[in-house]
Amino acid sequence: MSVTDELLANAERYAAGFDQGGLALPPARRLAVVACMDARLNPYKILGLREGDAHIIRNAGGVITADERRSLAISQRLLGTREIILIHHTDCGMLTFTDDEFKADIQCDTGLRPDWAAEAFPDLEEDVLQSIGRILADPFIPHKHSVRGFVYEIETGRLREVKR
Amino acid sequence: MSVTDELLANAERYAAGFDQGGLALPPARRLAVVACMDARLNPYKILGLREGDAHIIRNAGGVITADERRSLAISQRLLGTREIILIHHTDCGMLTFTDDEFKADIQCDTGLRPDWAAEAFPDLEEDVLQSIGRILADPFIPHKHSVRGFVYEIETGRLREVKR
Repeated sequence: MSVTDELLANAERYAAGFDQGGLALPPARRLAVVACMDARLNPYKILGLREGDAHIIRNAGGVITADERRSLAISQRLLGTREIILIHHTDCGMLTFTDDEFKADIQCDTGLRPDWAAEAFPDLEEDVLQSIGRILADPFIPHKHSVRGFVYEIETGRLREVKR
Repeated sequence: MSVTDELLANAERYAAGFDQGGLALPPARRLAVVACMDARLNPYKILGLREGDAHIIRNAGGVITADERRSLAISQRLLGTREIILIHHTDCGMLTFTDDEFKADIQCDTGLRPDWAAEAFPDLEEDVLQSIGRILADPFIPHKHSVRGFVYEIETGRLREVKR
């Protein structure tokens, strides 16, 4: 049995006890969170978010690329969110390699070099600031009065703000 | 007080009760989930996932663009995941507009036309299959034996598989 099959049994149990119907499409807290995909980082629990509260956008590193800017533009322009929280974290996989190495390995394996940046970074705090900066520089995200960035400490559960 | 400030108080409570230290960086279930950012869709609860289990990748629509292919390549090649679960959902914001309309509105507002596709879609099931297809066609994601796509029903809590 695959992991997917196991989890589908969980999904049936979830549906059987479901009582969250009737929530509105626009997020109640008017918030979008951009976080790393890391398995140990659960934005619902860390921030105390409930179903219906916030858009959750996640990728490798919690970085800001064109797709996050697309998602944030849709989130703010069509669905009314106003604040943005960015979350990177300690012990992140993105600290363990460089773009050049990773892309050379892939080229060696497949014969092709990826046409995207891997977005690895050597410094966590600097990359949080880089991500904030990319949002502030984006012409299509209208609401920028509250764009705040954090490092989540995998070891302690603490969320620590990063400021210039 | 901003919503962000309120949630930071939650984060302090989370840290005070934190007992998840010592989890490994590679996801224990060797799974990556790609889901819509929608506020009402909580992949942890739906799939019964716990901290440490799976990478969670999310964006507007749960679609597959270059950034999701980047995240999946990192997830599989550097962090050992093997299965992929895609989740779209009913009552999705992406069903309510077209790329052309949205980008024309933005151009009207800012004077600039976004250089990205908005990735709106008129048919939920077709877009799940489109997303699966983009993963299967990607040369940099190595493990494709279990790439399965689902529609989550916001109204009932049910997860329904989409197959060609």
